[in-house]
Amino acid sequence: MSEETIDGGVSPQGYVDLGYAKPDTQREERTGVAEVIYGAGKTADQIAGIVGALRGAGQERVLITRLDADKASEVQGLLANRDAEEFEYRDTPRIAIVGGLPEPDGDAYVCIACAGTSDLPVAEEAAVTAEMLGSRTVRLYDVGVAGIHRLLSHADDIAGASSVVAVAGMEGALASVVGGMAKCPVIAVPTSVGYGASLGGIAALLSMLNSCASGVSVVNIDNGFGAGYQAALIDHACKRAAERRG
Amino acid sequence: MSEETIDGGVSPQGYVDLGYAKPDTQREERTGVAEVIYGAGKTADQIAGIVGALRGAGQERVLITRLDADKASEVQGLLANRDAEEFEYRDTPRIAIVGGLPEPDGDAYVCIACAGTSDLPVAEEAAVTAEMLGSRTVRLYDVGVAGIHRLLSHADDIAGASSVVAVAGMEGALASVVGGMAKCPVIAVPTSVGYGASLGGIAALLSMLNSCASGVSVVNIDNGFGAGYQAALIDHACKRAAERRG
Amino acid sequence: MSEETIDGGVSPQGYVDLGYAKPDTQREERTGVAEVIYGAGKTADQIAGIVGALRGAGQERVLITRLDADKASEVQGLLANRDAEEFEYRDTPRIAIVGGLPEPDGDAYVCIACAGTSDLPVAEEAAVTAEMLGSRTVRLYDVGVAGIHRLLSHADDIAGASSVVAVAGMEGALASVVGGMAKCPVIAVPTSVGYGASLGGIAALLSMLNSCASGVSVVNIDNGFGAGYQAALIDHACKRAAERRG
Amino acid sequence: MSEETIDGGVSPQGYVDLGYAKPDTQREERTGVAEVIYGAGKTADQIAGIVGALRGAGQERVLITRLDADKASEVQGLLANRDAEEFEYRDTPRIAIVGGLPEPDGDAYVCIACAGTSDLPVAEEAAVTAEMLGSRTVRLYDVGVAGIHRLLSHADDIAGASSVVAVAGMEGALASVVGGMAKCPVIAVPTSVGYGASLGGIAALLSMLNSCASGVSVVNIDNGFGAGYQAALIDHACKRAAERRG
Amino acid sequence: MSEETIDGGVSPQGYVDLGYAKPDTQREERTGVAEVIYGAGKTADQIAGIVGALRGAGQERVLITRLDADKASEVQGLLANRDAEEFEYRDTPRIAIVGGLPEPDGDAYVCIACAGTSDLPVAEEAAVTAEMLGSRTVRLYDVGVAGIHRLLSHADDIAGASSVVAVAGMEGALASVVGGMAKCPVIAVPTSVGYGASLGGIAALLSMLNSCASGVSVVNIDNGFGAGYQAALIDHACKRAAERRG
Amino acid sequence: MSEETIDGGVSPQGYVDLGYAKPDTQREERTGVAEVIYGAGKTADQIAGIVGALRGAGQERVLITRLDADKASEVQGLLANRDAEEFEYRDTPRIAIVGGLPEPDGDAYVCIACAGTSDLPVAEEAAVTAEMLGSRTVRLYDVGVAGIHRLLSHADDIAGASSVVAVAGMEGALASVVGGMAKCPVIAVPTSVGYGASLGGIAALLSMLNSCASGVSVVNIDNGFGAGYQAALIDHACKRAAERRG
Amino acid sequence: MSEETIDGGVSPQGYVDLGYAKPDTQREERTGVAEVIYGAGKTADQIAGIVGALRGAGQERVLITRLDADKASEVQGLLANRDAEEFEYRDTPRIAIVGGLPEPDGDAYVCIACAGTSDLPVAEEAAVTAEMLGSRTVRLYDVGVAGIHRLLSHADDIAGASSVVAVAGMEGALASVVGGMAKCPVIAVPTSVGYGASLGGIAALLSMLNSCASGVSVVNIDNGFGAGYQAALIDHACKRAAERRG
Amino acid sequence: MSEETIDGGVSPQGYVDLGYAKPDTQREERTGVAEVIYGAGKTADQIAGIVGALRGAGQERVLITRLDADKASEVQGLLANRDAEEFEYRDTPRIAIVGGLPEPDGDAYVCIACAGTSDLPVAEEAAVTAEMLGSRTVRLYDVGVAGIHRLLSHADDIAGASSVVAVAGMEGALASVVGGMAKCPVIAVPTSVGYGASLGGIAALLSMLNSCASGVSVVNIDNGFGAGYQAALIDHACKRAAERRG
Repeated sequence: MSEETIDGGVSPQGYVDLGYAKPDTQREERTGVAEVIYGAGKTADQIAGIVGALRGAGQERVLITRLDADKASEVQGLLANRDAEEFEYRDTPRIAIVGGLPEPDGDAYVCIACAGTSDLPVAEEAAVTAEMLGSRTVRLYDVGVAGIHRLLSHADDIAGASSVVAVAGMEGALASVVGGMAKCPVIAVPTSVGYGASLGGIAALLSMLNSCASGVSVVNIDNGFGAGYQAALIDHACKRAAERRG
Repeated sequence: MSEETIDGGVSPQGYVDLGYAKPDTQREERTGVAEVIYGAGKTADQIAGIVGALRGAGQERVLITRLDADKASEVQGLLANRDAEEFEYRDTPRIAIVGGLPEPDGDAYVCIACAGTSDLPVAEEAAVTAEMLGSRTVRLYDVGVAGIHRLLSHADDIAGASSVVAVAGMEGALASVVGGMAKCPVIAVPTSVGYGASLGGIAALLSMLNSCASGVSVVNIDNGFGAGYQAALIDHACKRAAERRG
Repeated sequence: MSEETIDGGVSPQGYVDLGYAKPDTQREERTGVAEVIYGAGKTADQIAGIVGALRGAGQERVLITRLDADKASEVQGLLANRDAEEFEYRDTPRIAIVGGLPEPDGDAYVCIACAGTSDLPVAEEAAVTAEMLGSRTVRLYDVGVAGIHRLLSHADDIAGASSVVAVAGMEGALASVVGGMAKCPVIAVPTSVGYGASLGGIAALLSMLNSCASGVSVVNIDNGFGAGYQAALIDHACKRAAERRG
Repeated sequence: MSEETIDGGVSPQGYVDLGYAKPDTQREERTGVAEVIYGAGKTADQIAGIVGALRGAGQERVLITRLDADKASEVQGLLANRDAEEFEYRDTPRIAIVGGLPEPDGDAYVCIACAGTSDLPVAEEAAVTAEMLGSRTVRLYDVGVAGIHRLLSHADDIAGASSVVAVAGMEGALASVVGGMAKCPVIAVPTSVGYGASLGGIAALLSMLNSCASGVSVVNIDNGFGAGYQAALIDHACKRAAERRG
Repeated sequence: MSEETIDGGVSPQGYVDLGYAKPDTQREERTGVAEVIYGAGKTADQIAGIVGALRGAGQERVLITRLDADKASEVQGLLANRDAEEFEYRDTPRIAIVGGLPEPDGDAYVCIACAGTSDLPVAEEAAVTAEMLGSRTVRLYDVGVAGIHRLLSHADDIAGASSVVAVAGMEGALASVVGGMAKCPVIAVPTSVGYGASLGGIAALLSMLNSCASGVSVVNIDNGFGAGYQAALIDHACKRAAERRG
Repeated sequence: MSEETIDGGVSPQGYVDLGYAKPDTQREERTGVAEVIYGAGKTADQIAGIVGALRGAGQERVLITRLDADKASEVQGLLANRDAEEFEYRDTPRIAIVGGLPEPDGDAYVCIACAGTSDLPVAEEAAVTAEMLGSRTVRLYDVGVAGIHRLLSHADDIAGASSVVAVAGMEGALASVVGGMAKCPVIAVPTSVGYGASLGGIAALLSMLNSCASGVSVVNIDNGFGAGYQAALIDHACKRAAERRG
Repeated sequence: MSEETIDGGVSPQGYVDLGYAKPDTQREERTGVAEVIYGAGKTADQIAGIVGALRGAGQERVLITRLDADKASEVQGLLANRDAEEFEYRDTPRIAIVGGLPEPDGDAYVCIACAGTSDLPVAEEAAVTAEMLGSRTVRLYDVGVAGIHRLLSHADDIAGASSVVAVAGMEGALASVVGGMAKCPVIAVPTSVGYGASLGGIAALLSMLNSCASGVSVVNIDNGFGAGYQAALIDHACKRAAERRG
Repeated sequence: MSEETIDGGVSPQGYVDLGYAKPDTQREERTGVAEVIYGAGKTADQIAGIVGALRGAGQERVLITRLDADKASEVQGLLANRDAEEFEYRDTPRIAIVGGLPEPDGDAYVCIACAGTSDLPVAEEAAVTAEMLGSRTVRLYDVGVAGIHRLLSHADDIAGASSVVAVAGMEGALASVVGGMAKCPVIAVPTSVGYGASLGGIAALLSMLNSCASGVSVVNIDNGFGAGYQAALIDHACKRAAERRG
């Protein structure tokens, strides 16, 4: 570490320097969303340390993604009292929340649609992330295009959303069909569901990038977090617009 | 060439040896479909030589695929009288036909659907090939999933076909949606229509191979010929079944 | 879930909404084949729930693919009495059948050929799927092209089939050789058998997509199910043709 | 074409059937944005035909993308009088506009940032598309990260936008840096600017999909159109939110 | 250039230093085969300079590969008298020979088999290279596996060869079938013949690397030269063995 | 299985039909080398069954490759007495031999060179295979190009060989350097040794396919067996040549 | 452009804003090397504008890379008098220099080695770039490993350099061999020289990234500029070290 | 092994021949850095043998990379007394050191920057390697571009370094931003941190190869060793330059 680092102290530069990490305490002010912890590839000690630093710096809620159940228990055991008490773990999306979910704000909602039952973990990661950032959500699960009547019977849910997160593996066709039905931005999430030429989700990713429907953008494979995050940013933009008008 | 080759003569082994090519005069008997000429990478001289050999060996109709307009003229100029007279060239699918198309046989039909206007050359290659092999065809063009009502309004055409050839570039989602609507085999043809991450048709190819609909098989990128050919083979199988019953 | 969903009830839209899944009860009517369960990535609970919903909606037979032996036991334990009694598991293709195989109908048959002993699981998945959908089958195993006399000695089996499913890993050359021998459609299944530059089956997949023989279409790597399914659809088309004629 | 097609007539199903194309006259009602023409792979005749059909069906403005200058002249020559008069072509983004750009609506703006001078055509495609759909735009060109002070000096433009379109080739790092500075969604557009291991834009595409900043989604390589389109959809969502509030 | 280089002089280190090239005058002694010139990416001036240097250093015959017809004329015009007189150009394999082909030595022969007419340029490059290095050749052209009787009727040519060069594009199955028939090494040459998923010859390359037949090795796509070269090295090894015995 | 199969009997067509396998009893006569068993993906039962069939049909020696130690014990336990006694297992190359290695025949030798210690398993697979087919071998291990004096000090071993098998992972440069030193064919074996951008051996494979040295051909990644096999075929060709002369 | 931009003026933020470009006038101070112009994808007008801005801001020398001869003439015609006079174009590396090359400073030198004659354009780009940044150079051309004595005879040139730039296409083995001989950093430049499985330089790139020699780092395919640049930075570091000592 | 090998003896050719390995005892003299052991794919016995041979040949310090903790214990147990005593293992970088780290020499330092906490193992491998070769180091950890103020607050550490090692996974943007800030060479290390479209580090690798900043070269994915090694070689070059001047 360079010499001017004060271990564990809140640096005036807008981050805490823990040596192994520099949690960004300026992020909420800068981007409207507080620092989130990506759990993969970090030890339980490191995660607990970062949670402590963020909460110590005044952050109300902390989201930890990509955390398996065993490491979650370990992290919880390492946290300070109040943090440990407010620690909640959800199995399907492999997410931990410290400080609880906020109340959704406003009447807009993000619609989370997924093609098959195997896509649920990713869809739930998107849904919980959006909720953590203040959005209301509506879930449409197992509405893949092989039985397109299932999707068409929910046309109103899609038409009324502020954004749609479309989650699908295999050929990822859901995104294009939804894209042709929606008035709002569609954020497509390819999943690694499939085998062989699905190439771990590359097939769905390429499919979504080449969507013949126009309002579709794409995040990384299995990145439910990123899609839920951007959906919430759209809600934030809408709220700012409404406030300017209101 | 090995010594036992008799130049240009019909070998008793079931092919004509032209040195640069050995047209297969046994193919119709073996597979039910006479030899077809793949025009790319052959000179006009070679193509004309092969046409001559096949017609000389008694083949009634010859199909030449992947032939550009200039080479087609050159080939026509090199053919013997009767062959030149019966030579017909079609621009969109870049196909030449010597000996004319046969009358379709029976009331079954192959449905050729394509996603966009840019897919027409491939769709037409499929249609003409199927017609050359005796099938009746119904064409549904520009029915991509971004405006899915266009496809749904033709549900009867799909329901009644003996097979559907689904032609699409970009994300190739058409194949999955059709696959969920059809009773018959769907043969999917990815096209190279698109740019960037379409990777020259690889995106559509992978998409179709990973279709969440079950009755979909796939041929090479832009291989309208192969799809039309297999669709006709299905018709041939149906005819044999009907004849056994009849 | 959107509000109009009635949990577990048969929706008039043609599916049952279980929250985590929406089994398609309209599929048989629409496509001629009832809903099939893809077992990978679903929990035993979810699978048992879907089986129950389909059987409850009147579906006679249910096929579950990609199910390992342990999860199969677990599923069986969760099923209702009659469903559990009629549950049968097959190790090699990792398939479960609820409600038994139907009697094959008619004298046509699907020929399932595979290149090597290591390809058996995929070949059996194709064979059992086709049988489940009502087709008769003939199996030709370990007939790879390195000893081509093994294949040639079965030329009659290939010539007489309504379709051939050609299963091969490594270089996948079997499909092309069979394609040059057959009168009927050849559905090629690349397998992940091989190592190094086989790239998990991509080499065989590309090989089959580029087959120099004309009547060959391809399904995903290791997708015996998809090939058996399409072979059965061809048989269905033949039966419809024969019935129209008869 | 299937029999029920009335050539050139407005079908009650919500499209015009031109045989080679079925322009979607229901799109504006369904998605809030009228049909756009993708010019690549279509002949001038086809493009002119589609423009005519859309304008005939009452569409006020038509955008044609991926149109080179020569084909643009040809199209203009083929159009009916009023359409030809209102036809405008822009060289850099290779876009034609029929019917003029609308006045931007509201005080929100889309910020279009690009990394280098060679990215201008894509950035301009995004900007004009967003303007065509009613958005106001602010352009920040040549602000790549190798001289990051150029970007940092425009922090206010980024902070105030409703969305940022970040356009970059080579390593595409601009998207991540902008993502760390913005409160709003960032739509990243990889470009094919670069050589060698840029793989025609794949390097930038992968980079953007893996952005360590959270609010970034991605469109296809060189797809300025798609990014501008989604940026405008976000503005539309904001307007709807403001109207609900207002 | 480093200072100790004597421009154009024969360096005692076993090469001539021309600045832009250092032709290897020691190669024949070291490897049994004299220096060959790869014509692609060199100017006519450079090629002529290297020919002059090699001939000046006593090399009897010079082979130039990958030389198009126009550059060949230009090179010939730049050569010294005797070299220009002994310069011969062959169109199909795009090869130039200075000093003529040697008489084949011994009764062994290399069998060059290719799958289709479009593979001829590569097959001829292999054949002429082998002949240039002293081998006798037998050509079997257009013996692809879609009509396998054509290949089987030449089983004796394959059985009697010292090595077989198997040239094929598309799926490259020829190599495996030949590999199952031959007693000798098979050198497989994938070609770029094909389209779409042939990926410029990658499909055939992977296919050949994964051959289920055991005695098959592979060279680069379209590298007829390399295959002919190695076939000749096998003949050289056989000659040395025979001489040791004789 | 098709009906004409006689289970376990030696079919007059030149193979034994075991249902799950058809061991090729005609291979030695046809190719000069008896059937070899690829152990991966076969059960111990299947392997033992094939060994029994081959030995029962008179094959003296059987080689089993890609066999891990546990399965080897299991196979040995399942073999008939004499076969089990003559069963020998080698750990490094994961090979089993039934019936012992033959005496090498003649004074020629195959030189097996490998770049690093981690390449030993593949190099030993090549060496034992060549020995099993009657070749004499010389091993040069850990002679990678980073310390090229190690290789240069063995120049005589390379110069005197009938062929060189060059085994290397990482960048695979050994093949090119050996190719520039050898008079005989070089068979290059890329290995999966490496990490990251070695892509499981693809880097070494591509490197070897693009060797700037001319007499180099390549086998699949980690395919020591294939390289040893082809090296032995070259020795066989040399012996036949010497016998013709002698 | 955002409103605060003063067209063409030197902004106090350390760049000139030309609208289409923001040349970085702070770069020399920050990185020790003044702004360089990447010529590809820029119009002659744009290039001339940037040259003018940089020279106007006091930059003595300007390097323009990837500039073809025709555009170079055009640029020269558009420059102001003094700039046009000091404009020099070099064909092989396709580089233009405005303001001349500086005198090399110090006795250190960069050694530029390339494998073959076809690699000269890239090698020269590296050499001229290093010279432009003040380095002395020694060129070793056509020293590929197929005739390794050519390289070994220049061992002293390599041993004495401050860094070696190793330029090679095809399999790129030169980098590893040089890496095993050098005391200094080796900067490897893969080139697109080759065909087929060279994949436009990817084979050489992967090879160099996996070098078994330890002191090798790599730049993009054909990026002679980047390698020369980094070689010069090493010289700069050495000079600073010497000055601190001196 | 070829016959002239004396097992375990120090060969006069500059290496020790252990049969399974030929440790290079000439490397320090030739390259300035003694032989290093790559631990992956070697047995503990082999590693201990090589350590013994190198120390026996007089090498003071031995570095072993890619060694997991269990194998490290095993190696230590197999070493001779003095070697075992001087054996030290570090968990994070998975490195063992025999003979201790040297004192850093001079006042220059290598700056090691990494983007995130998950990159620490690779960053530490780089740091320890550089220290082992005599360099002083400064570590900047978790300074990724999503919170760029963390990096900018360390601008002086970067400005003063002799080289910067920039370690990052995901999109690897750190290298470009650092490249735009540094006066010295930047050696970029992509890591395999990430998921989905990070493709095991390929995304970061491509990103770094395409850096828009000029002084950046790249090593293999996760190759901290290679980067630390080259950084130290730059320090060595600086020391030689200073000594020449001093």
